[in-house]
Amino acid sequence: MSTQNPVFIPGPTNIPDEIRKACDIPTLDHRSPAFARIFKPAIAGVRRVLGMDQGEVIVIPSTGTGGWEAAVTNTLSPGDTVLTARFGMFSHRWIDLCQRHGLNVQVIETEWGMGAPVAEIAAALSADTAHSIKAVLVTHNETATGVRSDIAGVRAGLDAAAHPAMLFVDGVSSIGSMPFDMAGWGVDIAVAGSQKGFMLPAGLAILGVSPKALNAMENATLPRTFFDFRDMLKSYATGGYPYTPPVGLIAGLAKAIELLEEEGLEHVYARHHRLAEATRRAVGAWGMTPCAATPELYSDTVTAVVVPQGCNGTDLVQLAASKYGVAFGVGLGEVAGKVFRIGHLGMLSDVMLLSGLATAEMCMADLDWNVQLGSGVAAAQEYLRNSADVALAQAA
Amino acid sequence: MSTQNPVFIPGPTNIPDEIRKACDIPTLDHRSPAFARIFKPAIAGVRRVLGMDQGEVIVIPSTGTGGWEAAVTNTLSPGDTVLTARFGMFSHRWIDLCQRHGLNVQVIETEWGMGAPVAEIAAALSADTAHSIKAVLVTHNETATGVRSDIAGVRAGLDAAAHPAMLFVDGVSSIGSMPFDMAGWGVDIAVAGSQKGFMLPAGLAILGVSPKALNAMENATLPRTFFDFRDMLKSYATGGYPYTPPVGLIAGLAKAIELLEEEGLEHVYARHHRLAEATRRAVGAWGMTPCAATPELYSDTVTAVVVPQGCNGTDLVQLAASKYGVAFGVGLGEVAGKVFRIGHLGMLSDVMLLSGLATAEMCMADLDWNVQLGSGVAAAQEYLRNSADVALAQAA
Amino acid sequence: MSTQNPVFIPGPTNIPDEIRKACDIPTLDHRSPAFARIFKPAIAGVRRVLGMDQGEVIVIPSTGTGGWEAAVTNTLSPGDTVLTARFGMFSHRWIDLCQRHGLNVQVIETEWGMGAPVAEIAAALSADTAHSIKAVLVTHNETATGVRSDIAGVRAGLDAAAHPAMLFVDGVSSIGSMPFDMAGWGVDIAVAGSQKGFMLPAGLAILGVSPKALNAMENATLPRTFFDFRDMLKSYATGGYPYTPPVGLIAGLAKAIELLEEEGLEHVYARHHRLAEATRRAVGAWGMTPCAATPELYSDTVTAVVVPQGCNGTDLVQLAASKYGVAFGVGLGEVAGKVFRIGHLGMLSDVMLLSGLATAEMCMADLDWNVQLGSGVAAAQEYLRNSADVALAQAA
Amino acid sequence: MSTQNPVFIPGPTNIPDEIRKACDIPTLDHRSPAFARIFKPAIAGVRRVLGMDQGEVIVIPSTGTGGWEAAVTNTLSPGDTVLTARFGMFSHRWIDLCQRHGLNVQVIETEWGMGAPVAEIAAALSADTAHSIKAVLVTHNETATGVRSDIAGVRAGLDAAAHPAMLFVDGVSSIGSMPFDMAGWGVDIAVAGSQKGFMLPAGLAILGVSPKALNAMENATLPRTFFDFRDMLKSYATGGYPYTPPVGLIAGLAKAIELLEEEGLEHVYARHHRLAEATRRAVGAWGMTPCAATPELYSDTVTAVVVPQGCNGTDLVQLAASKYGVAFGVGLGEVAGKVFRIGHLGMLSDVMLLSGLATAEMCMADLDWNVQLGSGVAAAQEYLRNSADVALAQAA
Repeated sequence: MSTQNPVFIPGPTNIPDEIRKACDIPTLDHRSPAFARIFKPAIAGVRRVLGMDQGEVIVIPSTGTGGWEAAVTNTLSPGDTVLTARFGMFSHRWIDLCQRHGLNVQVIETEWGMGAPVAEIAAALSADTAHSIKAVLVTHNETATGVRSDIAGVRAGLDAAAHPAMLFVDGVSSIGSMPFDMAGWGVDIAVAGSQKGFMLPAGLAILGVSPKALNAMENATLPRTFFDFRDMLKSYATGGYPYTPPVGLIAGLAKAIELLEEEGLEHVYARHHRLAEATRRAVGAWGMTPCAATPELYSDTVTAVVVPQGCNGTDLVQLAASKYGVAFGVGLGEVAGKVFRIGHLGMLSDVMLLSGLATAEMCMADLDWNVQLGSGVAAAQEYLRNSADVALAQAA
Repeated sequence: MSTQNPVFIPGPTNIPDEIRKACDIPTLDHRSPAFARIFKPAIAGVRRVLGMDQGEVIVIPSTGTGGWEAAVTNTLSPGDTVLTARFGMFSHRWIDLCQRHGLNVQVIETEWGMGAPVAEIAAALSADTAHSIKAVLVTHNETATGVRSDIAGVRAGLDAAAHPAMLFVDGVSSIGSMPFDMAGWGVDIAVAGSQKGFMLPAGLAILGVSPKALNAMENATLPRTFFDFRDMLKSYATGGYPYTPPVGLIAGLAKAIELLEEEGLEHVYARHHRLAEATRRAVGAWGMTPCAATPELYSDTVTAVVVPQGCNGTDLVQLAASKYGVAFGVGLGEVAGKVFRIGHLGMLSDVMLLSGLATAEMCMADLDWNVQLGSGVAAAQEYLRNSADVALAQAA
Repeated sequence: MSTQNPVFIPGPTNIPDEIRKACDIPTLDHRSPAFARIFKPAIAGVRRVLGMDQGEVIVIPSTGTGGWEAAVTNTLSPGDTVLTARFGMFSHRWIDLCQRHGLNVQVIETEWGMGAPVAEIAAALSADTAHSIKAVLVTHNETATGVRSDIAGVRAGLDAAAHPAMLFVDGVSSIGSMPFDMAGWGVDIAVAGSQKGFMLPAGLAILGVSPKALNAMENATLPRTFFDFRDMLKSYATGGYPYTPPVGLIAGLAKAIELLEEEGLEHVYARHHRLAEATRRAVGAWGMTPCAATPELYSDTVTAVVVPQGCNGTDLVQLAASKYGVAFGVGLGEVAGKVFRIGHLGMLSDVMLLSGLATAEMCMADLDWNVQLGSGVAAAQEYLRNSADVALAQAA
Repeated sequence: MSTQNPVFIPGPTNIPDEIRKACDIPTLDHRSPAFARIFKPAIAGVRRVLGMDQGEVIVIPSTGTGGWEAAVTNTLSPGDTVLTARFGMFSHRWIDLCQRHGLNVQVIETEWGMGAPVAEIAAALSADTAHSIKAVLVTHNETATGVRSDIAGVRAGLDAAAHPAMLFVDGVSSIGSMPFDMAGWGVDIAVAGSQKGFMLPAGLAILGVSPKALNAMENATLPRTFFDFRDMLKSYATGGYPYTPPVGLIAGLAKAIELLEEEGLEHVYARHHRLAEATRRAVGAWGMTPCAATPELYSDTVTAVVVPQGCNGTDLVQLAASKYGVAFGVGLGEVAGKVFRIGHLGMLSDVMLLSGLATAEMCMADLDWNVQLGSGVAAAQEYLRNSADVALAQAA
């Protein structure tokens, strides 16, 4: 029997009923004014969630990976230099994408568990007096390690060096769940997806694009058609879309923003922080630690839990799925086996989280890890009940 | 934000996605053969769930209360005597219904927390040598106290007295979740509702009716039209329905039976027992006891938890709703305030149950009850993980 | 392949997507305040649709038939006299129900195709100087013949005779689609169902009850529990319900009223009139006539089309279903075979109606009836395009 | 009020209820075996619909345009020559895409209303003795003009010239609705989308890829990551996906194929032909003609209707939308204003089609075009009723 347990993967996230219904609509003519009545509020809402004060929002039937490709192909030309750091699977993949597109990728290798190396980036920018670096690429929230990077710090490095490079940020697993300040941080392209903080099914790449990036678009020679911002913006201007848009997902995006703003973005971020902190309390009670090296790096959307010596995080993930019907994330790349990941983002309540923590504990006991049943749950309960916001629950 | 926490009331229960979809269908002509293609499998499935070997199934757009009224008005006449016991809110309500319909109700007052008084019933039947008692009414599972009665025992009393009274059983909160053996127990009318073990929304009364009860129908003079079995059976015979049927709910009923039988009824009952037992382990760890007086009486669908002296169960229920967005059941009638109730029936997994137990614990701590966070959860975890059926979870 | 053709039966009607979604909700605790937040707006909306200025609204998980039974059992006692007329299948059924409940039913036999015989009713009331008649029962819209009766006329008869009898009106197939003025007409109980003008699935009886009928409730001795207004009103007063309510259907009822009022009730009635008139134009072009004897009697929700001599309306209905997947209504009772019925109520557009008319024509040609293809469609098109309200379609 | 009229645009098409439900699923872990259980049947089904005997199926969260880009970037290198013809908006767009990706596009300009110029293509291939042409690109069904091209004829030209060029076919608006024989026609890449014959929302590009095209993939140097077949096939081999897949749409694809095969692909194609022919009968009765120059070119999925001199097809489309809430397609590019388009593909019944034809007629009358109301409908009715397949409707 289907049990409809929540998922605890770091995306796609649990989809609220209201969003499922908003996505599930009869066919309408995307060339009629009905489309613009759905699309415009979605676009306007994304601006608010990204913290944009200028520039444009682009929405493409694609995924985060497609969003990255769109960012790169619309603004860069073969042989251009970009600066980035590798400290997890998703930063690694972005490097790979750039290399496949013929860019010259200057990589700062960084330990997994650390965030974007702000000082090294600043140094590299200072050293680039010729301004050959066209863009700095940073993963805001590295989903593989549960690490949040300091985007404001990267911006400070750019400013200190008075470097004209664009700043591209992968916010796929942070936007809509953790504060994001595109204007304040001077981000030129922010990339989000539908299936994380926006609580939708996968299928949309969502980008915020600054005027500087829009300028770069005019001279960029990497080939693109499907992802071409120029076609997008030309069509948007008349309430249209350059090809058949996924109307249901876009209607769902508008509804997602409505739900986020009904709760209040600050409230949403505070809820994510509480759930993340409760998770970390449980991790501590289990005698384990997050993969993120220091508290400033802790992600509020995913915790990669370092498992004890001799234990294998993947075993836990497989047992949770096969025995209890619950999905956690395995460790990827360099931390495969060394961690398991608890996603705590999107549509998630205290009560749902506790069911995930309780399940993880049962798996630990099943696997003979040295953990006491109820210990992590109790630590999380104590934190949650003392930090609960009654109004929030009442609004539930 | 809607959190879609599961509910832990003893019905209506959480609705599986498949059943929601089965209920949510476009309008079809209930006078066309399409209706019978939906209705017949539903009827046939109910027979199997009730354990019927003969007689008829009746499905009425109504609720359990309507089912009781249908049972009484179709088989009895004003002034008829019925024998029953009062040991909870639902047995009480059935008595009230009979009295309002002008029946002579012979009530055996029984302590709340006890089950149907098999010996007293047998004695009353033996004493009724004139056979003035036309029917014995028993609540199989008293939802108010979490008590399961011994229907086979009641049947034995009837048989020992060679008494011709009919046996009517309220199985609203047991059927589909706990073993029910209409043929073996010689039940003449069994009453179920859609919103408990069948995991549907409220809106259907579902009855199994024996040949003896069908015979009684011919001479019963209590007035009825909407609930009239004769109109029902006449219409069913030609694939029809005496008025407009709730086609979506009936389609959902067919799907519910499909899901129950895919899991296997024995498996369903075993799952309910495990979840109930895990709940009782948690209750024990909290230092509390079920309202049901002895283990043989423990219900596998709902546990009424007796709260410590000086505590009020209703406080916990209200706090769980207002602070954590979780629904438990309050104590009703004689046990108001003295218990709170945890429903553990229908579409429910280990993981979902643990979230309910963890929530109850947080409320206890919030209310300064003397309970250790994590204690009940740990006891339930230990039981669940050692009794888990891997195949079940894999099928999830 | 499922073709999702609209249905043209006179109920249940096609369900708008918004209403399907409103009905399809996760389980919530009906004993929590969340229930009243759904129920109260539904109740308040029904008052507006019924045109009530005082009294109470009652909503029961049942159907129109249950609504009739509730009206009768809550206000009358065995042996009471009621006055009514038989002029179709639904007035016939109401008579049958009263007789089964031991009432003395004074029936004015009336030709099918005629409406309630206002003069004879008035005469009978005048003659009843002893005021033995407790209630006058009138079917507002006789679904079997497509006839609308003059409720204001019946009220005038009551007033002229200064007769204290209550006035009960079956508005199942009129309310929400045709003007209904409970206050203006002095109706004491109006009975509606969910599955017609309210565009919901079957499953709710919806009643408006006047203060006079509420008074009668106190002394009525017909037995009832499930349908008992007293339990209902007592529970409603505290935001509750006397047993488990069908929350999804009630949420759908609130949404239905929202949709009706967004369109505007006057607009809704005008739309129904247009669609009915277009249907009648088609009927005329086919050389046929409505069963309703005169234009004042024409129903705006269903047209019973008298088929030519030698033709059988049931053949058309069966062929439409088997060959084209379209549902019309057969003739019932005295007009079986002599008519077929086109339902044109609820969620229906010009375009949907034309598909039904075109299908009926194909069936006529298939059956070698003497009808020209396209003739009825053209007559309907001409009427529809000249009476179309652009704003309405744009709002679509 | 929402009227849920069907749409008559040539895609996206009306979505069957079963497919909407199949798409609308709770989140599941795409890294668990549950994903492969959904994905594999979808992939296998696409093979059957495309008529593949070897090669691979690729499914990308994208649209038809993305599918074209994937076809080109995975198999070609900058500067490569491709041969194609421009005879409508969609063939035009494919040319544009190739040019933006730095290909040398050899274009045969062809009159709009004609199909792929088989003889000129053959001649160009024969003349290319150096085999510089790497691929021939053909639009199977030109949606802008309602023209179906002769893919077997193009294949014959390749074979006659013994030319090794690959054959790429845009089947976006034909696959699933008209016969497609990838193996028989020697197609190397076929491109489909989810939102036409597969009756899904937009959001998937669906490709069949021959072994020859897979070989070409190894040496193709156009940059790609999101669309890279290599990543796709590597992940598919282990039941995975290279990034987050749109699981709901893929589940919907599996359901769509189930529905198509339940009806029978031959039956599906026959149904589309009947609906198309009925449309053409109506067009003829209106005194108009299809844009497609000759009957062999008639598309069975969309008819572009050439409007009379002095009339503007776009006026009709706008009036149908604003006055009647019905969507048709405007003329695009060279035929803007000169045609309006009726999409008759996907989930469509006789009855639904008639409602569209009746609406178009009303608009013509409203616009004072010289057309008799009911004339086109009658012609379509006559054809439909005489060609109806009773079994089909009964299965509905």
